[in-house]
Amino acid sequence: MLEARLQNAVVLKRVFEAMTCLVSEVNLDCDETGLKLQSMDQSHVALVSLKLEDVGFLHYRCDRPRSLGLNMASVVKVFKLCSGQDTVSVQNEDEGDSITFVFENNAEEKTSTFSLCLMGIEQESLGVPDEEESDVVITFSAKEFASVVNNLKEFSDSVRIDVDKNGVKFITNGDIGRGQIVLKPREGNSDDDLDVGVDIKVNHPVSQTYAVKYLVFFSKAASLSNSCTLSLTAHRPIAVKFDILDPIQGESRSSAPKLGHFKFYLAPKMDDEEVDNMAADDMQAEEPKAEGQVKPEEDREE
Amino acid sequence: MLEARLQNAVVLKRVFEAMTCLVSEVNLDCDETGLKLQSMDQSHVALVSLKLEDVGFLHYRCDRPRSLGLNMASVVKVFKLCSGQDTVSVQNEDEGDSITFVFENNAEEKTSTFSLCLMGIEQESLGVPDEEESDVVITFSAKEFASVVNNLKEFSDSVRIDVDKNGVKFITNGDIGRGQIVLKPREGNSDDDLDVGVDIKVNHPVSQTYAVKYLVFFSKAASLSNSCTLSLTAHRPIAVKFDILDPIQGESRSSAPKLGHFKFYLAPKMDDEEVDNMAADDMQAEEPKAEGQVKPEEDREE
Amino acid sequence: MLEARLQNAVVLKRVFEAMTCLVSEVNLDCDETGLKLQSMDQSHVALVSLKLEDVGFLHYRCDRPRSLGLNMASVVKVFKLCSGQDTVSVQNEDEGDSITFVFENNAEEKTSTFSLCLMGIEQESLGVPDEEESDVVITFSAKEFASVVNNLKEFSDSVRIDVDKNGVKFITNGDIGRGQIVLKPREGNSDDDLDVGVDIKVNHPVSQTYAVKYLVFFSKAASLSNSCTLSLTAHRPIAVKFDILDPIQGESRSSAPKLGHFKFYLAPKMDDEEVDNMAADDMQAEEPKAEGQVKPEEDREE
Repeated sequence: MLEARLQNAVVLKRVFEAMTCLVSEVNLDCDETGLKLQSMDQSHVALVSLKLEDVGFLHYRCDRPRSLGLNMASVVKVFKLCSGQDTVSVQNEDEGDSITFVFENNAEEKTSTFSLCLMGIEQESLGVPDEEESDVVITFSAKEFASVVNNLKEFSDSVRIDVDKNGVKFITNGDIGRGQIVLKPREGNSDDDLDVGVDIKVNHPVSQTYAVKYLVFFSKAASLSNSCTLSLTAHRPIAVKFDILDPIQGESRSSAPKLGHFKFYLAPKMDDEEVDNMAADDMQAEEPKAEGQVKPEEDREE
Repeated sequence: MLEARLQNAVVLKRVFEAMTCLVSEVNLDCDETGLKLQSMDQSHVALVSLKLEDVGFLHYRCDRPRSLGLNMASVVKVFKLCSGQDTVSVQNEDEGDSITFVFENNAEEKTSTFSLCLMGIEQESLGVPDEEESDVVITFSAKEFASVVNNLKEFSDSVRIDVDKNGVKFITNGDIGRGQIVLKPREGNSDDDLDVGVDIKVNHPVSQTYAVKYLVFFSKAASLSNSCTLSLTAHRPIAVKFDILDPIQGESRSSAPKLGHFKFYLAPKMDDEEVDNMAADDMQAEEPKAEGQVKPEEDREE
Repeated sequence: MLEARLQNAVVLKRVFEAMTCLVSEVNLDCDETGLKLQSMDQSHVALVSLKLEDVGFLHYRCDRPRSLGLNMASVVKVFKLCSGQDTVSVQNEDEGDSITFVFENNAEEKTSTFSLCLMGIEQESLGVPDEEESDVVITFSAKEFASVVNNLKEFSDSVRIDVDKNGVKFITNGDIGRGQIVLKPREGNSDDDLDVGVDIKVNHPVSQTYAVKYLVFFSKAASLSNSCTLSLTAHRPIAVKFDILDPIQGESRSSAPKLGHFKFYLAPKMDDEEVDNMAADDMQAEEPKAEGQVKPEEDREE
């Protein structure tokens, strides 16, 4: 028996909604440590990794490990049954061919139940890139990340990210002209939980170019967390991490317990050599030539 | 001369908007007791019945009975002229070929007037189903009704409604799986006018299946009232009733005077015999085979 | 060097957005007195005239006059980079082939920069109609103007405006019927900056018909100002003027400094003679036969 009961059903709703642009079918892997999934996007350019810890749930029980094949569109449709005050319980009988979602609103004595048929999905064995040695790590507002990439996608398919100790630059070079958004490092506001500031750790300055549309897909997870963390290393995939908080009614978000995290990975565009030589501030970026892919490293544990 | 003047033009706006999915042309019947209309929907499966009482109006005068043929799309377009603070006066000269709507905002000394050409619409003589002997009567939040049927329409064309003393179940059985929403009887919150609770009166338990899209059409009227009343009887049309309140600025809605009511009727789907034998909680509902129709009972008075 | 720095970037954002329905490419004329532009709409029926005064800017410098060819869709896209707290600086190097917009949020130490390529646009020499001798001048809520023309566009392509000392009537005569919106003169509310009342100055009563879709385009500027001023003269273009205010955070709008203004002009429809003879209140308006155009008067200074 799997039974995972969460205080705020809308958190799990947003988790599934955030993935639906990237992946259409996934295996949700369940064991005694919690729920997790890893999947390449349909075009095999980006990778999404989700972990929901057992301790984040009101109640968590998983008698033996299992992998549940889900159609994301169906799951998102089921979660439209939940409203703001609902708890959710995710249930799967051992050897059962369905996953059941139970939404309960105790105040209104209302219960909504939906049993989805499970799918057989071929398991890809993916290793996620190791990120211990990132050249730069930037932590800033998740909402700001969503705003930046959504604004820049209007101008070009690509965005170049240049980072040094002075700040992070998101650079676009499109048909109608050239632009950049610069965020300087600054402290957050201790009186305002939502103002997390901009923290930049630099081992080596980095300049890399990415397909902006995948960063836009990643930004769908921004509503789950106050902050996000970008980890960049030359010639390596960028990692975009969002903690998943489980906000408790009436308490501020920064003190909310952490339920788990999303990590998204995207290989840089294969630029010609000029790109590394370009000065960020002259904004003469040539459009990169071709797209690389995340190269999954088999069986390496995160 | 017909002249009916209402404090809140937006109430009448919502009344007409609520019907526009169901009926495209209607005869508005006017006499000294108020305004009423009855009409089958275009596919002759559902029936809408509206009554606005003379006493609900600021001023009401109808010198002799008349039937005014209205194009609903035109009426809804005219009501876009009204804003939140307006009163409305509905006028028709005896033998006049037009209906005139006058919206007045006294504070702003603004008057908007529109005269619509009347249409000749063949009068259907409809009797509405008698509901004195309903097997069950459920009164609960109009907003909840709208939410339930709008959520369930995503999964299947049909919804089965099972009612007994323990609660009401809305059951769906779709391509992607099976689900149900259960509401248990409970008291409303006397401190919160909007929380009307769930009241269930049961003469005989009922299990009937309906085409969900018509219930969705009915739910357009949910914004007119706090609560709605479902009356179900085996093998008979369901009646969905909304009182129409005329909220007075600054007062709570439950003390608002009642202007009239909407009643909607929908024949059950013609199920095969199994349906009655199905236990509600095993959720093994077969998809019903064919649709029935509301059988208008000629000349029976409601 | 041109450098014009404005406290509220969103004001300039709305200025450009308001024009984008009317004109696709414009020359922004810059000299030491500020920024201005004049342009016919694509169909050469309406004329837009914009002036932003140098004194309305935080900082304004224009070493020598220049005309900057802008693609409106590109400019509007660039302004999506700005958010509510941003200042904007508009920059053009002497002989430079680009215009640069710099959005700065000092609190968040964020800077967004975009350089647009300039376009070569043939300069039309336009004179705007002289309005000293208008038959009537009406000043009222800009939001009300937007509401009236947007509501009436649903019924007919044309709107007749009748003005005398008793009020202003906007009259429509469409396929489904006839309507009018009447505003009577009244004082504004001195306790409410947003309630500017309705002021009507009449030299000679006027009745003129206009293509409503252009008035709808003009109304896009309504968000820039509390009030608008309509100036009408028989057989002459209507002028619709909006002051452009630069609201300061936390202060009421009526005390906001004036940055400049929009003036829009639209020639009346060429009615047959009956129109002038029609009594406004019998609402028997015939549909006008043909459209006139604003006849630009060459080289006349406003």
